[in-house]
Amino acid sequence: MNIQKVEQQTVVFNDAFAKKANSLIPTIYKERIRPKQIVEIVEDSKVIHGWRTEQVREVSDLQEIEFGKGDSVIVDFGDHEVGYVTLKLKSAGSPPDAPLHVKLTFGEMPVEVAEPFSSYDGWLSSSWLQEESVYVDVLPHILALTRRYSFRYVKIDIIDTSPKYRVIIDDTYCDAVSSAQLSDVYSYTHEDSVLAEIDQVSIKTLKDCMQEIFEDGPKRDRRLWLGDLRLQALANYNTFATNDLVKRCLYLFAAVPNDKGQVAANVFIQPSLIADDTYLYDYSLFFTTTLHDYYEETKDEETLKELWPTAYRQLELGLARLDERHIVQDDETWWSFIDWNDKLNKQAPSQAVLIYALRKGIALAQIVGACELAFLEKQLADVEKATKAHLWDETKQFFVSGKNKQVSWAAQVWMVLAGVLKQDEGRALMERVITEKPPVTMNTPYMYHHFVEALLKVGMNTEAIKTLKAYWGGMLEDGADTFWELYNPNDKTFSPYGSHLINSYCHAWSCTPTYLIRKYEL
Amino acid sequence: MNIQKVEQQTVVFNDAFAKKANSLIPTIYKERIRPKQIVEIVEDSKVIHGWRTEQVREVSDLQEIEFGKGDSVIVDFGDHEVGYVTLKLKSAGSPPDAPLHVKLTFGEMPVEVAEPFSSYDGWLSSSWLQEESVYVDVLPHILALTRRYSFRYVKIDIIDTSPKYRVIIDDTYCDAVSSAQLSDVYSYTHEDSVLAEIDQVSIKTLKDCMQEIFEDGPKRDRRLWLGDLRLQALANYNTFATNDLVKRCLYLFAAVPNDKGQVAANVFIQPSLIADDTYLYDYSLFFTTTLHDYYEETKDEETLKELWPTAYRQLELGLARLDERHIVQDDETWWSFIDWNDKLNKQAPSQAVLIYALRKGIALAQIVGACELAFLEKQLADVEKATKAHLWDETKQFFVSGKNKQVSWAAQVWMVLAGVLKQDEGRALMERVITEKPPVTMNTPYMYHHFVEALLKVGMNTEAIKTLKAYWGGMLEDGADTFWELYNPNDKTFSPYGSHLINSYCHAWSCTPTYLIRKYEL
Repeated sequence: MNIQKVEQQTVVFNDAFAKKANSLIPTIYKERIRPKQIVEIVEDSKVIHGWRTEQVREVSDLQEIEFGKGDSVIVDFGDHEVGYVTLKLKSAGSPPDAPLHVKLTFGEMPVEVAEPFSSYDGWLSSSWLQEESVYVDVLPHILALTRRYSFRYVKIDIIDTSPKYRVIIDDTYCDAVSSAQLSDVYSYTHEDSVLAEIDQVSIKTLKDCMQEIFEDGPKRDRRLWLGDLRLQALANYNTFATNDLVKRCLYLFAAVPNDKGQVAANVFIQPSLIADDTYLYDYSLFFTTTLHDYYEETKDEETLKELWPTAYRQLELGLARLDERHIVQDDETWWSFIDWNDKLNKQAPSQAVLIYALRKGIALAQIVGACELAFLEKQLADVEKATKAHLWDETKQFFVSGKNKQVSWAAQVWMVLAGVLKQDEGRALMERVITEKPPVTMNTPYMYHHFVEALLKVGMNTEAIKTLKAYWGGMLEDGADTFWELYNPNDKTFSPYGSHLINSYCHAWSCTPTYLIRKYEL
Repeated sequence: MNIQKVEQQTVVFNDAFAKKANSLIPTIYKERIRPKQIVEIVEDSKVIHGWRTEQVREVSDLQEIEFGKGDSVIVDFGDHEVGYVTLKLKSAGSPPDAPLHVKLTFGEMPVEVAEPFSSYDGWLSSSWLQEESVYVDVLPHILALTRRYSFRYVKIDIIDTSPKYRVIIDDTYCDAVSSAQLSDVYSYTHEDSVLAEIDQVSIKTLKDCMQEIFEDGPKRDRRLWLGDLRLQALANYNTFATNDLVKRCLYLFAAVPNDKGQVAANVFIQPSLIADDTYLYDYSLFFTTTLHDYYEETKDEETLKELWPTAYRQLELGLARLDERHIVQDDETWWSFIDWNDKLNKQAPSQAVLIYALRKGIALAQIVGACELAFLEKQLADVEKATKAHLWDETKQFFVSGKNKQVSWAAQVWMVLAGVLKQDEGRALMERVITEKPPVTMNTPYMYHHFVEALLKVGMNTEAIKTLKAYWGGMLEDGADTFWELYNPNDKTFSPYGSHLINSYCHAWSCTPTYLIRKYEL
């Protein structure tokens, strides 16, 4: 994710929380992976992005090829990897009388090694495009790259050697890294092979995003975002159960609130713990819900008690945005994420997120015996009542949002998740959504997750499985090794950034099917 | 220098010699240099290559500039430097939410930071063009480049940051390296300010080429070539007197002859001592003359005795190329360097180099009391006689070369240096060269050096000084901080490689004026 809004913020650093987070830095496990085949990229209008791979040689042939100026090769590691790549290089011919100039391009998808990065013209920084240009003065040389890359394919372009020598790639491998280990995953049997595959690829996606923190995507932004963390934590409980990593991430957010007490939408951990200056209405509230989910899973009362004030503060700040009607104010000054969709009005779904968070906050308040319990219960009642009074459109039979009374999928989905409606009303609403197809649709796996969970919540399991298979199964059919940041089955080149080259093809918020499948026993 | 000929060679490794060379690895002195000004490059058809610099800001302003995507700056270190560059980078604005992508281009001359390297289309490897493309994942960052560069100008292109932050270059410096120290140079007073400046720039040129070995050029090839070594050693004796470095280099060559005993034209010292597979008729003979000069300077009998067999072997191999007339055979199978000049026939100048080397070899044979002395004296007599009989053209009053009886400057110059003519005959010949201007002229400072020394040898000091001032003084007028690999006053874009971008602008074989000025007390 990437949000461009900048505000001046004062951060109140909590040293004790930061220290606790530091004490929970996970072990990073390494696994040495070698490429599986040598491929070329072939234009094919029938596949996603218009490019597919074709094996051209055995990978065992690699060390027999002598590369000269202008030659290139694409090695395919056979699966998505996150890690540190090494190339062992040696020369053939005369002693190398000039440096070797080599360019490496890393692709999670074939398109990234097919279309030149120079063609990229999106608004996100081009520095996310994964490449490296290296001069090697002395051969043989072990070129051990120090940057971590996220990829399946590595294109190696020999920009120049000299007329007197060629270069041989004697060996290449990736030391893949993760703080998760597949051997730790709870085994779970699926009769349905598609769901089984979706489950496995979800777990791989989660694993590749689990590093020193829960990253949103190992290609981009490689960062801890609250919206992703919430979903990763849920997926993690039913798979790796690396619960201390959730705890660490909660402490990281709690350590750097602003002077109003609001937690940032994301934090950096390098060069040191720094809160980003992006604050999102929904994401801050997810601190509370993530703490709730963590406690439910672990019953870790010490952490709950220590972080309760931060969690409570997010609810207070969420409530502070309500107008006199108890409706979240919609204006130009705020940001709520909900989905990557410029057309989406955020008011109604944000109102639902507030209710969703209040409910989880109340559960926590009961456990900690907080004096704020009664206040929260009163607020929840008022907000729910106001929601039905002001955001429910009796004529349309949909929740509406903003001054233009927009009907979006997101608003209905979140109202169902927030439990604003009774089970049967919720089911009727979800059926209406599917039948009537409101024009403001869903753009991201993140929003699709919420849609599927809303279906499951109202007992529409068949529809939920259908969506899982169509959407995440669609990614698999389109060649996903890990699930993607963005997927629009109707526009497979969709990118909110202006180019599918910069999309992340291993993205945390896409890893939730394993949670949905396992939690709801699909 | 760069020669493209490849032959299969068997090298006979002399471990004792290699060890001796290793025991003489010099101390590398470091000096921290900071840039002097911020410049821009301005098109100007009146200056060399069409580009000159213009100061645009004080260097002290640098850390106040915030650079965003597409910005660039050129820092001018004020003089030629060879070393390791560090940039201290920090961010301004929001916390950096994307990597920094920065490109660094190093130029000895303004043209290198003015014309894009992508325009280079010469036959030498483009990997010699000095640039670096770096992604910085975390700011602040101390970007300490591990490659050594040779430059005066550094162009810093900010390829991308992100819309949320800018980058500041908080500090930048070069740890300049050399095994020579200017404080060691014998002081020498010149009344003539132009000669004084030529002397100083010669010494700076030599210094920047003195590293773990005598390099031909710190930009390119960064390698020990015998033809350069011979001249560097001569310049060194009258300046730094770092004589052990000459000794080290002689042992390096002697350690890796081929199975015929011939020393290579150049050797690599990384990843280990390796003889290049280039063998040049003249360069191998210069092993003998360089040993002679080293002994004359140091009276180091131990080294002389140890290396005499290698030196003698080069003479034998040189003599083995003579035909039954005692003339060096000219055909397609051999290489003799003499000058960068495709039109130059190498026979007569190579014959002269053989005579030159025989004379020095005879001097050495006398000192070591070698049994081969008489043989060498006989050979010298035969070769000199043959030279006058077969290569002197009585009609033309010039030495001629090859089957087309070519008259070149190189042939006359080398015959004078070889002492084939009496002093007055030599003087007459040199005067004739200057007056009649044979069509096959001189292309490199290397050849100009020999021309000037030939003038001095026959007592034409005025003409010698005039050439020094016109040629090396011309480079100074054209902006040289160190003397160049190539300089043709009549075609200042001349490059034997197809582009002046790849020429070396600090080149050992250009450093000899300090030797000529000091040795001949000009």
